[in-house]
Amino acid sequence: MVNVGVIGAGLMGTTHARILAAAVSGADVVAISDPARESAERLAADVGVGVVYEDGIELIEANNVDAVVIASPAFTHEPFTLACLEAGKPVLCEKPLAVSADAALRIVEAERATGARRVTVGFMRRYDPSYVDLKAKLDAGVIGAPLLVHCAHRNPSVHSHFDSAMIITDSAVHEVDVTRWLLGEEIVRARVLAPRPTSRAAAGLLDPQLIVFETESGRLVDVEAFVTAGYGYDIRCEVVGEEGTLELLSPSTVAVRREFTESLVVPPNFQQRFGVAYLQELQSWIAAIARHDPFDGASAWDGYAAAAVCEAAVASLGRDGEPVDVAIG
Amino acid sequence: MVNVGVIGAGLMGTTHARILAAAVSGADVVAISDPARESAERLAADVGVGVVYEDGIELIEANNVDAVVIASPAFTHEPFTLACLEAGKPVLCEKPLAVSADAALRIVEAERATGARRVTVGFMRRYDPSYVDLKAKLDAGVIGAPLLVHCAHRNPSVHSHFDSAMIITDSAVHEVDVTRWLLGEEIVRARVLAPRPTSRAAAGLLDPQLIVFETESGRLVDVEAFVTAGYGYDIRCEVVGEEGTLELLSPSTVAVRREFTESLVVPPNFQQRFGVAYLQELQSWIAAIARHDPFDGASAWDGYAAAAVCEAAVASLGRDGEPVDVAIG
Amino acid sequence: MVNVGVIGAGLMGTTHARILAAAVSGADVVAISDPARESAERLAADVGVGVVYEDGIELIEANNVDAVVIASPAFTHEPFTLACLEAGKPVLCEKPLAVSADAALRIVEAERATGARRVTVGFMRRYDPSYVDLKAKLDAGVIGAPLLVHCAHRNPSVHSHFDSAMIITDSAVHEVDVTRWLLGEEIVRARVLAPRPTSRAAAGLLDPQLIVFETESGRLVDVEAFVTAGYGYDIRCEVVGEEGTLELLSPSTVAVRREFTESLVVPPNFQQRFGVAYLQELQSWIAAIARHDPFDGASAWDGYAAAAVCEAAVASLGRDGEPVDVAIG
Amino acid sequence: MVNVGVIGAGLMGTTHARILAAAVSGADVVAISDPARESAERLAADVGVGVVYEDGIELIEANNVDAVVIASPAFTHEPFTLACLEAGKPVLCEKPLAVSADAALRIVEAERATGARRVTVGFMRRYDPSYVDLKAKLDAGVIGAPLLVHCAHRNPSVHSHFDSAMIITDSAVHEVDVTRWLLGEEIVRARVLAPRPTSRAAAGLLDPQLIVFETESGRLVDVEAFVTAGYGYDIRCEVVGEEGTLELLSPSTVAVRREFTESLVVPPNFQQRFGVAYLQELQSWIAAIARHDPFDGASAWDGYAAAAVCEAAVASLGRDGEPVDVAIG
Repeated sequence: MVNVGVIGAGLMGTTHARILAAAVSGADVVAISDPARESAERLAADVGVGVVYEDGIELIEANNVDAVVIASPAFTHEPFTLACLEAGKPVLCEKPLAVSADAALRIVEAERATGARRVTVGFMRRYDPSYVDLKAKLDAGVIGAPLLVHCAHRNPSVHSHFDSAMIITDSAVHEVDVTRWLLGEEIVRARVLAPRPTSRAAAGLLDPQLIVFETESGRLVDVEAFVTAGYGYDIRCEVVGEEGTLELLSPSTVAVRREFTESLVVPPNFQQRFGVAYLQELQSWIAAIARHDPFDGASAWDGYAAAAVCEAAVASLGRDGEPVDVAIG
Repeated sequence: MVNVGVIGAGLMGTTHARILAAAVSGADVVAISDPARESAERLAADVGVGVVYEDGIELIEANNVDAVVIASPAFTHEPFTLACLEAGKPVLCEKPLAVSADAALRIVEAERATGARRVTVGFMRRYDPSYVDLKAKLDAGVIGAPLLVHCAHRNPSVHSHFDSAMIITDSAVHEVDVTRWLLGEEIVRARVLAPRPTSRAAAGLLDPQLIVFETESGRLVDVEAFVTAGYGYDIRCEVVGEEGTLELLSPSTVAVRREFTESLVVPPNFQQRFGVAYLQELQSWIAAIARHDPFDGASAWDGYAAAAVCEAAVASLGRDGEPVDVAIG
Repeated sequence: MVNVGVIGAGLMGTTHARILAAAVSGADVVAISDPARESAERLAADVGVGVVYEDGIELIEANNVDAVVIASPAFTHEPFTLACLEAGKPVLCEKPLAVSADAALRIVEAERATGARRVTVGFMRRYDPSYVDLKAKLDAGVIGAPLLVHCAHRNPSVHSHFDSAMIITDSAVHEVDVTRWLLGEEIVRARVLAPRPTSRAAAGLLDPQLIVFETESGRLVDVEAFVTAGYGYDIRCEVVGEEGTLELLSPSTVAVRREFTESLVVPPNFQQRFGVAYLQELQSWIAAIARHDPFDGASAWDGYAAAAVCEAAVASLGRDGEPVDVAIG
Repeated sequence: MVNVGVIGAGLMGTTHARILAAAVSGADVVAISDPARESAERLAADVGVGVVYEDGIELIEANNVDAVVIASPAFTHEPFTLACLEAGKPVLCEKPLAVSADAALRIVEAERATGARRVTVGFMRRYDPSYVDLKAKLDAGVIGAPLLVHCAHRNPSVHSHFDSAMIITDSAVHEVDVTRWLLGEEIVRARVLAPRPTSRAAAGLLDPQLIVFETESGRLVDVEAFVTAGYGYDIRCEVVGEEGTLELLSPSTVAVRREFTESLVVPPNFQQRFGVAYLQELQSWIAAIARHDPFDGASAWDGYAAAAVCEAAVASLGRDGEPVDVAIG
């Protein structure tokens, strides 16, 4: 049994703790931490955990904690991850790995210094059955060499504090990771084009955005990032290769015919779209820990590369599509 | 932790034991039994279990076994299930619950005598996300009152010992259970029509069959059961209601476009089509046991009713579509 | 230029006359007849025709009429078709060819006596691009030998005078023709099963019906005929063969994503679903006449066979699914 | 009857002449011209036309020619169109309207000088049922105000003389016209990004290309133009609005299930994909001429605007995505 401590009792911490407690074989949630003690206690009660901390560092250092999930605010990710490395404990850190590429690079280097791979970044799409199948077919050569990737990332709405940069760092970052993973190479340039914004967006928010990435070998990835799309949580990905294309399908369960339409559900939120991905990610992570195997999830390097690409894209904002090189070590 | 013993180390026992060991939270597989000791030992090693029995009764009575999965040949289901009842242990018995409706009824009565509900029949489709969503929408009144159900059950191929009756009792039995569950009422009559058989079927095998069921309230359910369909494992279900229809979708992950076609995968076997259903069934069962809650899976009565309906359908075979009443207690 | 006279200025006459006048190459509508002179005049004005008759026989005999479309009430089809044969003019008669199989057989025989094929029955589905493609693939052996056909014929609603027999003779008759055409053989038996009727149907109307046909070679065709289905005009057809299946698709033009659904339009009526089929049928018919070629549409025999099959099905109504043999000459 | 002369007996001239002769109501093809007399005679024989010219100007001036289709090489479009204007005859000119925006503008001005609208450019997609439906839904406000349009234009292959500029002027020009038409406004800037080319393309050919257009009001249109895509002729269009999205569907007729896949046909060429659009365009054009109504097809201005946009895109080629303003009068 792998004893897991969860840092952060907000939305993501709750999501992870519940899945770990109810649906992951071989895991035991043994501690929750949150500076808001009440939140921590509420979540602890919810998932049947006895021990609660206000300070994540205490949780990390607790003897009975074997592995740590970090789901606290982004600015805490670096110190908590470094503390996990120091404690020699596997850690699954929600994205972003750190608040800057530089900070993420420090984690990469700290991990390297330990000589072992213990850091995973929570890019859960790598465990979504549709993405997994798409990558398998791509790697099997079903469409020949890939040339282009078309992506869309649409949220129905976002909190009022969401700004134009966060559309890149919080939403499109998933496309950054997933296309790096699909194509097996780095993104080296980014540019952002912004059409006239939707009237549903807050004043000043550049939403939607059309982001274009270029990879080392000259492939192009275009991403529509649209966080106030209203109609649903809709993630699209089509890889265009020399012999054909592969298109990600959204999971559908039932076709409804009524009132002169045939319809499918568009998921309302990421939990519904990627619930299985979160479960698979956690189950695979726990199993790898139990077997003392390296984990195949996104590494610290992946977290760093994603941050560096996002920084380039953010720097391109408001520059009329002028490309910005990714500064990657 | 619920300690589970698995009776039977064949295909189904292996499927259940592996899922329980690798992917179900709160379960521990602690014992395997099979008269073929070597098979039991191989499976035990595979899933990390130390204790092996040749006799399922010993497994049932073992002190450290809290709950039992029966996946041995059909003729053993009755004695093993009764032994579980005697031992007061929850049991998940693969279908069929017993080799005859009469035998299944004895289990129903034995369970009733205990005053508690401990028997579950492994009609896993009740946990398939598509069927679950279909039932939710049906119950929510999305299509009004249901009138008809159209089903197809297609296997690519079957073992050479499969006979015409087994097409009903081994394949279409799933449609019997799932339509009883969807409609919330009993099937009272059955008739089987057989077209000229496919040339792919063994001599004498009536394959495909078109089976028509009638429910208490006069609804019709038609089932194409076709076990040498060749092209894939394809399960269909459309419920036609007064205001519209609901159609089960097969899970799809990626659309492939190449060579002038756009294509999706048709699953090759039941494991791929219903893998998630088996997992959900086992996870829900274990969670209910852990909480000492009654389990919402198919009951002994459901197993009995399905057997009685299948007996009527089998009796109708070769009678040119003449209906046979279901003898249900 | 083929000069066409249209008998009947109701819904079907109007449909045909408008298509002929506006969209068929090589055709000129030169005369309209209807006992309701005003209707005839209105349609004549609408499509730019100068000559109007009250009596269809006058139209048939008019010198400038080369070919005749019969779209008057069913009881007039026999005399008008016979008059066309007598006049030696090609005729496209809306289904049914006659009010009884016997009457239809008289037409078959009258045509045979002329030594030429001049009668076409308006089973327009044979010109629908989806059915045409399905038949081409079936004939090309894409799924091997066909074994079963599953059909559904759903109308949103019908006029209040529609009775249980008309569900067969007016609606399911299309499935009779199209499956005879697809399979290339006769239907020899029919049986009707009726579930409890929808509450949307008029009192006494057996709607929906589940009709099962058997062909000469032992194939089965099941048809759900449901004329008060409410949600749309929905026609389905799946042919199950030894190597796979072919499923008719409804034409779709645009996917709409809004309000957490992705939806397609279900056509509201037969004009929208089969508009292209009517056009293709008329264009092919006119082109064949102009070239003095035999026309490949449904023949008088097809009209007779469909009538005979429908009579067997009607005879089976209310007999609890007992099969009735088709009396075919 | 509108008497039509067709200039050009190559692929497009043949396509138009055949449709006009066989499937358009109210049209008569009365003359064909081609400097290659033999080609003209072959086509004339094929579609039943008696008169053949080597010189298109003679055809235009022929007394019995009411309307002209220009399907000769691009460099002849300007003089032939101007001759039609001089002769006061309606003309449907295949795209491009002329070899340069300047030349197209001369046609716009020449037509203006006549005081009547007689020039149509053959942007047939405006008559494709899917595009028509998409525009109708967009105009009806189904998705609110449009913000982005994503397009793909994929050909299986092209002739060896195709160069990088022609990918814009011959292929993507359709997306230019159709998005101007959908959005109801001008495109004012263009930029081209080119990933590493497919190994299937001839040396030096920048294929695929990712072209981004900006409209007057600040909307963005991205177009993947890929002329050696291999797998099929695949045209995509999704309009993203403030309340949802509209996605063009490719017409599909039959789903085939065999060998563990479910598949649809991807059309092999533009004739199959847009056959109905060509027919509808010609039928609408002829009907408008017969009624002396203005025709709602693409105007000379549309031809000019498309040329100007393509010139800007071509100028952007090889400039690493730097935008080029559209010089539009």
